[in-house]
Amino acid sequence: PPAWGRATRQPPGLPLAPCRAFSNNKVLVELDESSGVATMKFKSPPVNSLSLDFLTEFCISLEKLENNRACRGVIFTSAVPKIFSSGLDITEMCGKSPEHYAEFWRAVQEMWLRVYSSNMVTVAAVNGSSPAGGCLVALSCDYRIMVESPKFSIGLNEAQLGIVAPFWFKDTFVNVVGHRVAERSLQLGSLYPAPEAHKLGLVDELVPEEKLQEKAAAVMAQWLALPDHARQLTKSMMRKAVLDRLVAHREEDIQNFISFISKESIQKSLRMYMEMLKKKK
Amino acid sequence: PPAWGRATRQPPGLPLAPCRAFSNNKVLVELDESSGVATMKFKSPPVNSLSLDFLTEFCISLEKLENNRACRGVIFTSAVPKIFSSGLDITEMCGKSPEHYAEFWRAVQEMWLRVYSSNMVTVAAVNGSSPAGGCLVALSCDYRIMVESPKFSIGLNEAQLGIVAPFWFKDTFVNVVGHRVAERSLQLGSLYPAPEAHKLGLVDELVPEEKLQEKAAAVMAQWLALPDHARQLTKSMMRKAVLDRLVAHREEDIQNFISFISKESIQKSLRMYMEMLKKKK
Amino acid sequence: PPAWGRATRQPPGLPLAPCRAFSNNKVLVELDESSGVATMKFKSPPVNSLSLDFLTEFCISLEKLENNRACRGVIFTSAVPKIFSSGLDITEMCGKSPEHYAEFWRAVQEMWLRVYSSNMVTVAAVNGSSPAGGCLVALSCDYRIMVESPKFSIGLNEAQLGIVAPFWFKDTFVNVVGHRVAERSLQLGSLYPAPEAHKLGLVDELVPEEKLQEKAAAVMAQWLALPDHARQLTKSMMRKAVLDRLVAHREEDIQNFISFISKESIQKSLRMYMEMLKKKK
Repeated sequence: PPAWGRATRQPPGLPLAPCRAFSNNKVLVELDESSGVATMKFKSPPVNSLSLDFLTEFCISLEKLENNRACRGVIFTSAVPKIFSSGLDITEMCGKSPEHYAEFWRAVQEMWLRVYSSNMVTVAAVNGSSPAGGCLVALSCDYRIMVESPKFSIGLNEAQLGIVAPFWFKDTFVNVVGHRVAERSLQLGSLYPAPEAHKLGLVDELVPEEKLQEKAAAVMAQWLALPDHARQLTKSMMRKAVLDRLVAHREEDIQNFISFISKESIQKSLRMYMEMLKKKK
Repeated sequence: PPAWGRATRQPPGLPLAPCRAFSNNKVLVELDESSGVATMKFKSPPVNSLSLDFLTEFCISLEKLENNRACRGVIFTSAVPKIFSSGLDITEMCGKSPEHYAEFWRAVQEMWLRVYSSNMVTVAAVNGSSPAGGCLVALSCDYRIMVESPKFSIGLNEAQLGIVAPFWFKDTFVNVVGHRVAERSLQLGSLYPAPEAHKLGLVDELVPEEKLQEKAAAVMAQWLALPDHARQLTKSMMRKAVLDRLVAHREEDIQNFISFISKESIQKSLRMYMEMLKKKK
Repeated sequence: PPAWGRATRQPPGLPLAPCRAFSNNKVLVELDESSGVATMKFKSPPVNSLSLDFLTEFCISLEKLENNRACRGVIFTSAVPKIFSSGLDITEMCGKSPEHYAEFWRAVQEMWLRVYSSNMVTVAAVNGSSPAGGCLVALSCDYRIMVESPKFSIGLNEAQLGIVAPFWFKDTFVNVVGHRVAERSLQLGSLYPAPEAHKLGLVDELVPEEKLQEKAAAVMAQWLALPDHARQLTKSMMRKAVLDRLVAHREEDIQNFISFISKESIQKSLRMYMEMLKKKK
């Protein structure tokens, strides 16, 4: 059975699984059983970076929701002020073993495969900056709402670190903003302030910060008004080609990541970037 | 020889086929031989639904025009007030035999293959609402002009009925509005009022109702100012991949339709929808 | 080794190749070694048409820059007032031998392969009209800046001459403006005045004529602020599918061109077009 793909729901008629809020170290999940909507809050300060721990917990939590028939939609948002997610945790990519790089990269793939192929309606409520892998999480959702402040920016800025976004980041990005904007943005490693991101279609809607959760709930209700089955099949039809491409090249993609990230030049540039981040504090 | 594709024109030098208006039960065709432009008016009240009869007559009429060298372009419009076409006739999909479903679906495919691959310039003059299959007809044309009234809406709203738009509806839609808008619209089964449809690129131009035919004729004249041969080859180059995909999977697509539509859950939801429509009257 | 693709740079540590301005009959190249930016000016009056001579010199010049590690970016612009490039030289396609057509078409392919796959940052500073092949040069760059005057127009207008743009012109165009706009524009052979071209995304930015070079330099500096390696790999990832398609079908594409252009009907229409151009003068 494939590691990703459409979760089989519990057949109707079984009693509802007992499901209240559950929390672990990195994410906080609340499920409103009356609406069928879960909210998954990222709470890994200071910047919600996507560490191996974070990704593991994220995937376990998402799988729980996916298998819970009381849950039909999930809103991703941040419990950390000013940041949605800073993207992949650079410490996982610096000075580690090839085995570690492989494990980490597989977890990144797994996160994307699960979100992009989720049977649930997925809404990103982007309440802070969202570079690189953080942007990928948002791009993988069905709908993106962002706080309107130009202080918050979003984009796939890997190129600025001397890193190349993998092909499935690119495919996901092209599906959202089209080829021209994706090509330019990826080459420049562009981070767009929320208003510009909205103009490019990178986010679907802007709202004042205090209206974000309310708006996310309203959008979710609109999506959940549709029958699940037709919506899920439609989503799968739209995303299948891009999902299949990673599934077909998953091990190769891991090997590519390992050999790229193991290069001394890349390691050096990541170390310099981390130094710079430390000084910023 | 393929059932679709570039019709062979009569060689020049043969006398013009006698061609005036011809009409049957479902469509009315008028050909202006001086301009080479035909107008095909849908006249199947109350809502121009695409029944098997309608589709059959539509295809025969289109083939006649395609093979008539005096005809270089066709304008599709409605003779029924307020509706362009309501899309596939649900009665054809409800409580019928598998053989009937197969025949019906083949006719739907045939209509799309003929319009999407037509050698003629095709202009949709959308003078009323145009959901689902009605929208597909418009999407398959070279150019879409719609009456500007927000009372008229257009879109592929299949998901609202619990039905999944087939992949070639989706491919045609993506070619017009891009992946992001298509993905969201198909999942939500969105019907867009004309002004919104125009903003999304779903229709190319809006006009007041009284200017529609005049505008369609002007657009047609602009397209016919180009040499036919280069224009036809260009159109074929742009649309070939998507056309080939259905041709390659045509029987499979019919089987998929039969097994989907035969499900009791789908039959039930269609019956409920028909009840609702009856009550609306 | 493929005729196109990523040029191997001189390894660091070798002395800089002596590189000042070099010029030949058709293009003038100036390299600013301090910034690493070359400017290639088309100077083949009256209209910078892409003759076999022009294409040959263009490719040699571009290869020189590509292999010069002091050069990281190139700005294409015109030294002829009011015209960027008028596109393929029709005299090369009229009344010549099949061998000549083959040689010419291979040179057109080569130009596109080199520009579209260049490791350098490529900016088109479009300071005049740019139909057909001239538009292709601009479309193949990373970024397009155009003088804002509506007197200057740009587009793939081949259909107006009864000619079909080849599939790789089309692929490049679709990557820039999307499927719908490309399909309509190619069928109509549309030439867009600069302001309209900007609205469609065909050019990225408009500036007053006197600001063009300054703006091009500023844009180039922005692109060169990124590490070359990641940017080059990203560009290659975005463009590989479309490049590979021509490489795989190159000889077939040449044969297609020869048989198309050798048709008496096409020859006649090209002769008529040339007559018309002469009368215009």
